[in-house]
Amino acid sequence: MEKLRRNERIGALMNVLTNRPNHIFTYNYFTDKFNAAKSTISEDIVILKRLVNKLNLGHIETISGAAGGVKFVPQMSQNQIKEFLMETCEYLSSTDRIIPGGFIYMTDILYYPDIVNNIGRIFASYFVNKDIDYVVTVETKGIPIALTTANVLNVPLVIVRRNAKVTEGPTVSINYVTGSTKQIHTMSLSRKAIKEGSNVLIIDDFMKAGGTAKGIKDMMKEFNVNVSGIGVFISTEHPNDKLVKDYISLLTLKGVDEEKEKVYIEPSKGING
Amino acid sequence: MEKLRRNERIGALMNVLTNRPNHIFTYNYFTDKFNAAKSTISEDIVILKRLVNKLNLGHIETISGAAGGVKFVPQMSQNQIKEFLMETCEYLSSTDRIIPGGFIYMTDILYYPDIVNNIGRIFASYFVNKDIDYVVTVETKGIPIALTTANVLNVPLVIVRRNAKVTEGPTVSINYVTGSTKQIHTMSLSRKAIKEGSNVLIIDDFMKAGGTAKGIKDMMKEFNVNVSGIGVFISTEHPNDKLVKDYISLLTLKGVDEEKEKVYIEPSKGING
Repeated sequence: MEKLRRNERIGALMNVLTNRPNHIFTYNYFTDKFNAAKSTISEDIVILKRLVNKLNLGHIETISGAAGGVKFVPQMSQNQIKEFLMETCEYLSSTDRIIPGGFIYMTDILYYPDIVNNIGRIFASYFVNKDIDYVVTVETKGIPIALTTANVLNVPLVIVRRNAKVTEGPTVSINYVTGSTKQIHTMSLSRKAIKEGSNVLIIDDFMKAGGTAKGIKDMMKEFNVNVSGIGVFISTEHPNDKLVKDYISLLTLKGVDEEKEKVYIEPSKGING
Repeated sequence: MEKLRRNERIGALMNVLTNRPNHIFTYNYFTDKFNAAKSTISEDIVILKRLVNKLNLGHIETISGAAGGVKFVPQMSQNQIKEFLMETCEYLSSTDRIIPGGFIYMTDILYYPDIVNNIGRIFASYFVNKDIDYVVTVETKGIPIALTTANVLNVPLVIVRRNAKVTEGPTVSINYVTGSTKQIHTMSLSRKAIKEGSNVLIIDDFMKAGGTAKGIKDMMKEFNVNVSGIGVFISTEHPNDKLVKDYISLLTLKGVDEEKEKVYIEPSKGING
């Protein structure tokens, strides 16, 4: 292709890096793609590094050695996270979200691209240094936020199913007891889904007593992998004593008052700086 | 914030536009964010428009009027689509993917961020001019590609469930018959999920006889919405006569020969230019 000018290369490089966070691109990849000398690309990267810092977008890392190259590690600042979570709480507190039984309707939020992209960026900001190999969730509502987290971390998503499927080949199934309703459920996962010895991050949309998260943790033992973190979008204030410890929750649901038509939800302690 | 230089602004603008395709950003948004005059941002946008064309990334549109602004419409070229689909076929043809019963294991592909992002870009390239309001899928394996398609089109995702859930409020449920095994299944969707009169795009991972797609179409009738398109990742060659017409399939599975350990799969006719 014809040579690009510097400001064009800066734009083109930013497009590539933004589209694939945490992927290591070699300098050769860029010199070939943009028909430019390595020294030119190096200068561009210096400009981009400074820019990404200035804009509080995270940072660009240069990795040296044979497998070296450049990667963009997006991170949301504490202020950006706080602002997003406050807005989301306001949105979730709308009275027309109250469903009989003390539930709140939040499916639309969990499926809206811009929101789930932000949630993915927040989880990735917290877990990016944990050498995560897979993001694991259980169907269904947590899948979008698990996928966007996996996307930012540049690792595969794994979806644990409620039932074994013929198209998955040999599967591992376990029974688990939900913490709040004490019901027995099954979950299953293809033997091929995860490599032994990996580090996984568990992501789910909602945690009450923590039975489902504990179920996934037990399932992970069967695969001989290490659970490096658990992230949930919303956890309930009660019960305070969950079946799993060491989880990060973005929002805490304090309660739903059906009579007064009020939803009490706020950013979780310690999450918003 | 301190003023940026032109090449920095080009990079910053590209980051914003890439992160949120098909979203209309006002000029005011950019002048505030980057502390720059409107004329300066206009010049930057001219540079970006030319660049996006040069790199075959789609196009940048300027919308005039009160609700006007700038949006980035990513599109994959026929060559890029062809190359990606050929690679994916090669990957799917690997003999260790054959599962007894003539199935192929493709879950990993459907959950890998870089691949599902590309599939989303391809579907969006085909349906971007159809004024889509929602992308609809049915749980579970099609969710990641439906979400990435929704992300590029900048519209909400809607997931039809196999069972009604208490946290969804009032739901609409329908029964449908799978085209290949003639089994009766149920699907259900929250009344709040879709506004009447909308245009929806149905996305799914796999189509054999088309019973599931037809089920979603029937469900959409209950919501008085218009099905503007159907996209599936893989369709089988047989039966040739599917229960839905007017669908786009990216790959055609011609067959799996368990004895010879061969998978026959190729880009669908007409899809790769």
